[in-house]
Amino acid sequence: MEMEESARKSTWDVNAKETNSAPPFEIAIVIDSREVENKRNELGGDPIRHLSTALSNAGLVVETDDGANHLVYVKIAAPLEVIGRAAEKLRLRKPTNVGLDVVFDWERRDAFSRQPLGDALFSWTERYQCLIAIVNTVTGTGNTSEPLVKKLQDAGVIKEVMPLHQEQQRKWLVEHWAMRWMDFTSQPLDAIYAYFGAKVAIYFAFLGMYTQWLIFPAVLGIILNLTDQGALEPAVPPVYAMIVVVWAVVFLQFWRRRNASLQNNWGMSYESEELQTIKALTKEQQGALLRGAADQEEVYGANVSDYEAKVLGREEWLTRIRTLKNNMIAVTCILCVQLPFELLYAHLNKFAPNDLIKYILTAVYILSIQYLTKVGGQVAIALTKSQQLVNKEAAANSMIYKVFGVYFLQSYIGLFYQAILHKDFSTLRSMLAQRLIVSQLMSNVVENLVPYATYRWAEYKARKAEDQIKRETGENAPDSHVSRMDKEFLTPKYEASIGSDFEDGLFDDFLELAVQFGMVTMFASAYPLVASFALLNNLVEIRSDALKLLVTMRRPAPRQAASIGAWLSIFQNLGVVAIVTNCALLVCLYDDAGRWKIEPGLAAILLLEHLLLLAKFGFSWFVAEEPAWLKARRIKKAYIQDHVSHRLLGILEESSQEEILQAVQNPALA
Amino acid sequence: MEMEESARKSTWDVNAKETNSAPPFEIAIVIDSREVENKRNELGGDPIRHLSTALSNAGLVVETDDGANHLVYVKIAAPLEVIGRAAEKLRLRKPTNVGLDVVFDWERRDAFSRQPLGDALFSWTERYQCLIAIVNTVTGTGNTSEPLVKKLQDAGVIKEVMPLHQEQQRKWLVEHWAMRWMDFTSQPLDAIYAYFGAKVAIYFAFLGMYTQWLIFPAVLGIILNLTDQGALEPAVPPVYAMIVVVWAVVFLQFWRRRNASLQNNWGMSYESEELQTIKALTKEQQGALLRGAADQEEVYGANVSDYEAKVLGREEWLTRIRTLKNNMIAVTCILCVQLPFELLYAHLNKFAPNDLIKYILTAVYILSIQYLTKVGGQVAIALTKSQQLVNKEAAANSMIYKVFGVYFLQSYIGLFYQAILHKDFSTLRSMLAQRLIVSQLMSNVVENLVPYATYRWAEYKARKAEDQIKRETGENAPDSHVSRMDKEFLTPKYEASIGSDFEDGLFDDFLELAVQFGMVTMFASAYPLVASFALLNNLVEIRSDALKLLVTMRRPAPRQAASIGAWLSIFQNLGVVAIVTNCALLVCLYDDAGRWKIEPGLAAILLLEHLLLLAKFGFSWFVAEEPAWLKARRIKKAYIQDHVSHRLLGILEESSQEEILQAVQNPALA
Repeated sequence: MEMEESARKSTWDVNAKETNSAPPFEIAIVIDSREVENKRNELGGDPIRHLSTALSNAGLVVETDDGANHLVYVKIAAPLEVIGRAAEKLRLRKPTNVGLDVVFDWERRDAFSRQPLGDALFSWTERYQCLIAIVNTVTGTGNTSEPLVKKLQDAGVIKEVMPLHQEQQRKWLVEHWAMRWMDFTSQPLDAIYAYFGAKVAIYFAFLGMYTQWLIFPAVLGIILNLTDQGALEPAVPPVYAMIVVVWAVVFLQFWRRRNASLQNNWGMSYESEELQTIKALTKEQQGALLRGAADQEEVYGANVSDYEAKVLGREEWLTRIRTLKNNMIAVTCILCVQLPFELLYAHLNKFAPNDLIKYILTAVYILSIQYLTKVGGQVAIALTKSQQLVNKEAAANSMIYKVFGVYFLQSYIGLFYQAILHKDFSTLRSMLAQRLIVSQLMSNVVENLVPYATYRWAEYKARKAEDQIKRETGENAPDSHVSRMDKEFLTPKYEASIGSDFEDGLFDDFLELAVQFGMVTMFASAYPLVASFALLNNLVEIRSDALKLLVTMRRPAPRQAASIGAWLSIFQNLGVVAIVTNCALLVCLYDDAGRWKIEPGLAAILLLEHLLLLAKFGFSWFVAEEPAWLKARRIKKAYIQDHVSHRLLGILEESSQEEILQAVQNPALA
Repeated sequence: MEMEESARKSTWDVNAKETNSAPPFEIAIVIDSREVENKRNELGGDPIRHLSTALSNAGLVVETDDGANHLVYVKIAAPLEVIGRAAEKLRLRKPTNVGLDVVFDWERRDAFSRQPLGDALFSWTERYQCLIAIVNTVTGTGNTSEPLVKKLQDAGVIKEVMPLHQEQQRKWLVEHWAMRWMDFTSQPLDAIYAYFGAKVAIYFAFLGMYTQWLIFPAVLGIILNLTDQGALEPAVPPVYAMIVVVWAVVFLQFWRRRNASLQNNWGMSYESEELQTIKALTKEQQGALLRGAADQEEVYGANVSDYEAKVLGREEWLTRIRTLKNNMIAVTCILCVQLPFELLYAHLNKFAPNDLIKYILTAVYILSIQYLTKVGGQVAIALTKSQQLVNKEAAANSMIYKVFGVYFLQSYIGLFYQAILHKDFSTLRSMLAQRLIVSQLMSNVVENLVPYATYRWAEYKARKAEDQIKRETGENAPDSHVSRMDKEFLTPKYEASIGSDFEDGLFDDFLELAVQFGMVTMFASAYPLVASFALLNNLVEIRSDALKLLVTMRRPAPRQAASIGAWLSIFQNLGVVAIVTNCALLVCLYDDAGRWKIEPGLAAILLLEHLLLLAKFGFSWFVAEEPAWLKARRIKKAYIQDHVSHRLLGILEESSQEEILQAVQNPALA
C-alpha cells in the first residue's frame, strides 16, 4: 500500500516542482526531412535548425530525434515559468485559494489553488494550451513577424504537431485503471483528468456512474425474469417500465450533481460561461460586441437598450429562424428518406421467402446504410456550418443532435416495427439481446482491433520503406526496428467517425452509450433483461475504452469541457420519449389478447395531447428567455469584470479573512 | 404635448437635484400623545422632542404635525447626501455607467447610473430602505445605545412608521394612469416603478401585457362563436384549445423576455441572486457559512469539499424531506378535506329538489368556505414556518403555492364536476360566464368600495372622537375636519387577505389573475368566449387596481423584486395542466354522442403515462441540480467579490474603454 502510494507520488508529481531540472517532453513537431531538402532554398536555410533556435529562444527545452522514413521529431518541453508567463499573456482564469477566480499572475502564483493530483500549478489542458500558443507564435530569424510554424506547415515541411504520451504515467494508468478488471466501476478519475483533461475524464466518470446505477434495474430485471409472479404476471411489464423511467430521471439528476462537484474538484470555474462565449468569438466579432456597446453609449446616453434591442434583436431572430429551417430540413430528410428506407428493409426482411434472400437483403442494407450514414453526416456538417454559429461548442452540439437523429431511427425503427406493427415481441426480444450482446460487445473488440491493425499495417509499411532507403543508400544494417517516437506517430488519431470538424473520438463513444441508454429505457416494458445486458457490456466498455485511449491511440489533445454537453439533453429526452414508448408497447403487449381497441377519435385526441406537450417544449426552446442584447450586455459585463479581476488579488491580500467576516456580520449601519 | 412634458419633468425630477433645498417628506412616524402623557416619567422627558432631535442630528429634515384624536405625526425627509451616506453604510449594490454593479460609494456617485425617470440617483425602494435604516438606528440622548424607535414602539408610543403619498406625483399618476380608460393596456410603467417600486410595477407590466395578448384568443373566440362553421363544427373545440395552449406557452416565454428587459431598464442587477440569499440570512447563519468555510480550510487544506459535502449535504436532504413532508400534508388536506367538501356541494346543488334549498345550500357553502379558507391559510402559514426556510422570498413562494392549491380546487372543482361527471356543458358554460363576468367584475368594484367604506367609517369615528375631546376640553370650535395626514393614516393598508406575514396586497391581485388564466386556458375547448370575458374584465382591472393603490389605499412599502416569482411557475404549470384538461374535456364533449368508450386497461395505461410525466417533473424538483455545499461555496465567492467590488471603481477609472477594447482584440500572446 505504501509502495503504491510512493509510486503514485513519483508518477504524478512530475510537474509539481517549480525548479524542475528536466521537464518532460509533452508535444512533438513532426517534420518531413525530404520536404526540407526540396524547399531549402525557398525557406532560406535549415528550417529544423531555425525552428529549434526559435523555440529555445522562447524558453522551451527542445530535442531533435531522427525517425524512420525521413521523419524528424522536434520534441518540446517547457519549464514551469515559461508556461506561467504564457498563461499570464493568454489571460487564463484560474481559481485562487480564497475561492475567487482571477486571471493568472506569475508573480502571485502561490495564491492560486493547485491540481488535485500531483500538486501541480497547471492542469494538462492549461499546459497544452500554453505550449501550443508559444509554438504558434514563435517567429523566424529574419525580420519577418510571420509565425514560423504556420509557414512551415503551409510549405508541407511540418506534417503534424502532436501531444506525446508520458511513458511513466501511461504505465501507471494501464496498471491501475485499464487492466483493473476487478475494480468494476471504480476508476482513478483524478489521474484520468490529470492525463487526458476534463472532457475525457467526464466521459469516464459518466460511464462509471451509469454502469453503477445500471446494477439496480439489471438485478431487478433478472429477478423478474427468473421468478414466477403467478397471478401478478400481467402487472410486471408496466411496473418494471415505471421503475426504469423513474430510475432514468433520478439517475440523470444525480449525475448533474456529481458533474457539478467534479467540476469544482478540478478547479473549473462556474461564471465563465459568458467568458467562454466571448473567447469563442473571432477578434472582429469581439470588437464589434464591445465597441458596439461603447458607441451606443455615446449616441444614446444611458438608455442604450432600445438601440441594442433593435440591432441584436433582428440578428437573434434571424439566427433562430436559420436554425429552425435547418432543423426542419434535417427532420424532413430523416423522415422522408431514412424512415421509408428503414421500414422497407424491416418489412422485406420479415417477409423474405427464405434465408438466402434475407442474407442478401441484410448485406445490401448494411452497404447502403454505410453510404447513407456518410451522406447524412455530410449533410449535417453542411447544415451546421450554414447556421453560422459563432460558438464552436454550440456548433458541435448542433452537430451532435442532428447525427443522433439519424442514429436514433437507424437503431430503433426495426425494433418498433416488430413491436408496434406486428406485435411480435419474441422477435423484438431476440433483436434487443442480439444488438446489446453481439453488436456492442463486438464493437468493443473492433474498436480496439481496428486501430491496432491499422497501426501494425502502418508500422509494417514504415519498416519496409526504411529498409528500402537503407538498401538505396547502401547501408548494410540489420532489419531496422521502429523507435518510440515512430510508434507514437504511427498509432491512429482519436477521431470521430463522422469527420473531425467538430468532435473527436468521444463522439462515437457517447453515441454508443446513448443508443444503449435508449434501449434500456424505451423497451423496458417489453424485455426486462435489457438492463443486465447493458451492464455486462459497460463493465467491458470501461476497460476497453481505457485501453484504446492508453495503448492503441495517440494521446488526444486535451479539451476543457465542464459537462457532457448536448449528450445530457439527449439522455434526458430519451427519458421523456421512454414514457411514451413504454405506454405504446404496453398497449401493443396487451392488445393481442383482444382486450381493447383504440377508437380513431380517442386516438386523435391522445395524439393531440402528445403533440401539444411536444409543442410546449419546442416553443420554450424557440423563444429564448433572455433577449440577445441583454445577453450581450451580460457578456460585456463579465468581460470587464474579468479584465480587472487580476488586480483584485492585491486587494484580497490586504483585507484579511477576519475583516471580511466582520463586514458580513455587521451589514447594517454601524 | 410640450406642457405635458414639462409637467412630467416638474413632477418626477423632484429627487434629481443634488442640492435640493427642501426634500419631500417621504415617511411619517405616528405617535399617540396620550401614551406620551402616560409614560413621560418612564421614558424620561418628552419622547417627541427626543425623537425629533435625534433624527435631526442624523441629518434628516423633521416636521411635526398635530392630528385629530391625540395623534402626532413626525414627518421625515432626507437630503440626498444623507441617503447616499446611508447607502454606503448599508453596502447597497448599484449599477455603474461602465456596466458593472458595485457597492455604492458617495464620493464616486457620478459613476453610478441614474433612474430611468426623473434622473434621480436613488430609486424609491433604495431611498425607503436607507430612510428606514436611519430611523431604526438613531439612539436617544442618554448614553444608551438602544435604538430609540424600537424603544418607543415597545412602549406603545409609536403606533406606526408609514410611507407617505407624494401629492404631486400621485395626482400625475391618477391623471395619466388611473383615469386614462382609453389607453386600454398601455401604462406609464417607469412612473409606476418610480412611485411604487419594482414589485408593483412588474405586476402592472404583467397585467398589461397579459391583457394585450388576450386580444387574440378573445377575438378568435368571438368569431368562432358568432359564425357558423358548418361541417367543420366538430373540429372547432380541439383546434381552438390547441391554439390557446400554444398561445399560453408563447405568451409566458415572451413575458420572461420582457421581464428581463424591464429588470435591465430599472437597473436591477443580475448576479445578485447569491447576494440576496446571503443578505436574507440571519447574522448567525451568515457567520456560520463564511466562518465555517474558513475553518474547514485550516483543517482540511485545499480539499474542503468532502467536509462541506458531509455537513451541508445532510442539512440539504433534511430540508428537502421536511419540505416534501409539508407538501404532502398540504396535498392530503386538500384532497381529503377540501375535495369531498367541494364535490358534496356541487352534487347537492345539482340534485337539490327546489330553488329554496339551493339558496340555503349556497349560503351554507359560502359561510363554511370562508371559514375553511381561513383555517387553510392558517395551516399553510404554520406549515411554511415549520419548513424553517432561511430565505424570506422562498418562504413567501412556498406560501403562495400552498394557498393557490386551495384556491385551485375551490375555483375549478365545480366546473370539472359539471363537465366530466355530468357532461353538462351548458351549465359549465353559464358557470364560466357567471364567474368571469359577475364575480370578477363585482370583485373589482368591491375591492375599491370596501376600503373606501372602511376609510369613511374610520374617518367618521375619528371625527366623532375629536368632537368628544373638544367638548370635554370645553373648546367651542365648529365641526372639526380631518387633516391630510389624518386621512393618510386612516386609509387602509395594502395587505393580503390571508395575513400579512409573507405577502402584501399583490397576493390577492395575482391570485385573481391566476384563477382567471386557468379558466381561459383549461376550459378553452369547452367555451371559446372565456377569453373575451377575461379581456373585458382585465381592461377594468388595470384602472381599478391603479385607483385602489393611488386613492383608496395607504402607499405600500416598496419591495424590490426581480420577477413575478412563484406566480410564473403557477402560470406555466396551468399551461401544462391545460393540455390534459382540454383533452379530457374533448373526450367528454364527444363522448355523449356515443362515439367511443375508454376501456379500463387503456385508461390505466394513460393514467400511468400521465403519472410518469408528473413524476419526471417532481423528481427534477426534489433532487436539486447543484449540491448545497457547492451552492454555499458559490455564495461565499459572490460575497467576497462583492466585498472588494467597490475598490474596482478606481481601477476601472484608470483603465479606459480603449484599453479594455485593445485587451479584447489581442487576447493571444503579444
